[in-house]
Amino acid sequence: MLGAIEAGGTKFVLAVSDDDFNIIERVSIPTTTPVETFKKVFDFFDNYQVSAIGIGSFGPIDVNTSSDTYGYITSTPKTAWENTDFIGLMKDRYPVPMGWTTDVNAAALGELSYGAAKGKTSCLYLTVGTGVGGGAVINGEPLEGYGHPEMGHILVRKHANDSFDGNCPYHSDCLEGLAAGPAIEKRYDKKAQDMTDNKEVWEIEAYYLAQALMSYTLTISPEKIILGGGVMKQTQLFPLIRTEFDKLLNGYVQTPDLNDYIVPPALKDDAGITGCLMLAQRAL
Amino acid sequence: MLGAIEAGGTKFVLAVSDDDFNIIERVSIPTTTPVETFKKVFDFFDNYQVSAIGIGSFGPIDVNTSSDTYGYITSTPKTAWENTDFIGLMKDRYPVPMGWTTDVNAAALGELSYGAAKGKTSCLYLTVGTGVGGGAVINGEPLEGYGHPEMGHILVRKHANDSFDGNCPYHSDCLEGLAAGPAIEKRYDKKAQDMTDNKEVWEIEAYYLAQALMSYTLTISPEKIILGGGVMKQTQLFPLIRTEFDKLLNGYVQTPDLNDYIVPPALKDDAGITGCLMLAQRAL
Ligand SMILES: Nc1ncnc2c1ncn2[C@@H]1O[C@H](COP(=O)(O)OP(=O)(O)O)[C@@H](O)[C@H]1O
Ligand SMILES: Nc1ncnc2c1ncn2[C@@H]1O[C@H](COP(=O)(O)OP(=O)(O)O)[C@@H](O)[C@H]1O
Ligand SMILES: [Zn+2]
Ligand SMILES: [Zn+2]
Repeated sequence: MLGAIEAGGTKFVLAVSDDDFNIIERVSIPTTTPVETFKKVFDFFDNYQVSAIGIGSFGPIDVNTSSDTYGYITSTPKTAWENTDFIGLMKDRYPVPMGWTTDVNAAALGELSYGAAKGKTSCLYLTVGTGVGGGAVINGEPLEGYGHPEMGHILVRKHANDSFDGNCPYHSDCLEGLAAGPAIEKRYDKKAQDMTDNKEVWEIEAYYLAQALMSYTLTISPEKIILGGGVMKQTQLFPLIRTEFDKLLNGYVQTPDLNDYIVPPALKDDAGITGCLMLAQRAL
Repeated sequence: MLGAIEAGGTKFVLAVSDDDFNIIERVSIPTTTPVETFKKVFDFFDNYQVSAIGIGSFGPIDVNTSSDTYGYITSTPKTAWENTDFIGLMKDRYPVPMGWTTDVNAAALGELSYGAAKGKTSCLYLTVGTGVGGGAVINGEPLEGYGHPEMGHILVRKHANDSFDGNCPYHSDCLEGLAAGPAIEKRYDKKAQDMTDNKEVWEIEAYYLAQALMSYTLTISPEKIILGGGVMKQTQLFPLIRTEFDKLLNGYVQTPDLNDYIVPPALKDDAGITGCLMLAQRAL
């Protein structure tokens, strides 16, 4: 039996499955304080005898196995969770192997195993929501090095018609500062979902996302790019992004047909928890 | 015995080594036409009985093993070499296993095995010369996906004091178009090596390179970034790049100490050929 935790900033999804990844139970709990939240996590997993647990967490997290704070959520803006020894707390209660990576790396792994990138060895998963976060799988492995990717903060060029300064506390007008949901809403002082018909909103958004996808493509050449998160519910963005991407890249490198390359998650909201189950199995 | 070819646009370096990578013979030949160049390659390797050959080539090249043109140099600006079946020609003559990747991936592998990134599992190698080319090793494997990285063409923001439009035929003002050696020389109409004392030249250069390194760091989080190529002979660039990188990233993610993170190649001009020998061994 495998355990999985998709630890998001808003909610935790907990699941157990059999060894073939058939889900036995699954619950969703709100992310409140660590004490409260871990109590619920323990209440759930105490009912099962899992042989491994896979965890995909919001971050930043420490993924460096040679670091003293490996397994911690580190300098997150969610201050109650700063310096939380996630893996330590879990291992104290369940002395089983644990997989540990970012929520977006887990989602990429889920999509690679059972979703839009099935049969591939690499893919990139970008969520465009409250923030912009990216993960990837390369040669079947979640992408980590000194730390984990923070693709949402790469720099992009300002759109000529965009007078919004950006709202990233670190970089002002990085990708996240210009293209995450809250940036869109601050730029127009309106909910994003209420501007579906405003062409300019989505052209500017596509301009920023296409620049980022160009940069990721030139840097890691993934076989598939999967775009999820609340903002991508505006599905009219997909063709706009593909057109802009094509224009920017200007044929310099070959990619798969863009309709197959820049796609929504096939597992929808299950990409993350599926990836966490894969992480559990890999930890065995 | 292992064989290696570092196939550059200007010259080919050919080497054979024993199984412990001790070089037995090594020659350098100019890159002219494929017919002439391969004749010299064959003249060299015909003297040895190699059990595998590793090739790091200028590009673009096809690294996709499921493609019909795997092992080809494809759409290179060096037109005589367009659509050259490099691996095919080599395999016809030497039916041994062959490793095949870009020259910069090979250099990254060399530096990871014996150079600046020894003991790490990941590093990024960027050459700033006639063009800007990047390669990487991740989890010990040369970075490839649908194709290979073309990191030199990511977009950067123009420096406020730079009125040069950029000279990339595909993107005008991408990194290569603004920061490769020929771009520097076109901007000032002067040889780069004759402007060592002109502070502005290197501040602008550092500004572009630091943006690119920020983007690579956020995207793949390598343990080490190695900067080689003719332009990096201007070693005053290293501290300028580190300072600008630090300013741009603004503490958002942890990196190694920048003096250990952004460094010159330890193997100097041997990074590529060393990596090619490693490729040969891996092909066995
Ligand atoms: N239907 C929608 N259309 C456009 N934007 C949306 C939509 N739903 C949510 N968003 C934006 O996405 C953000 C939430 O992102 P989401 O991915 O759902 O959550 P989170 O990033 O917190 O995990 C909201 O702040 C809002 O700006
Ligand atoms: N000492 C130097 N200082 C600054 N730039 C240099 C120097 N030497 C070479 N360059 C630049 O680097 C380019 C050559 O790059 P190099 O890496 O040596 O070769 P290639 O990229 O062709 O393999 C030249 O066009 C020149 O612009
Ligand atoms: Zn940012
Ligand atoms: Zn370019």
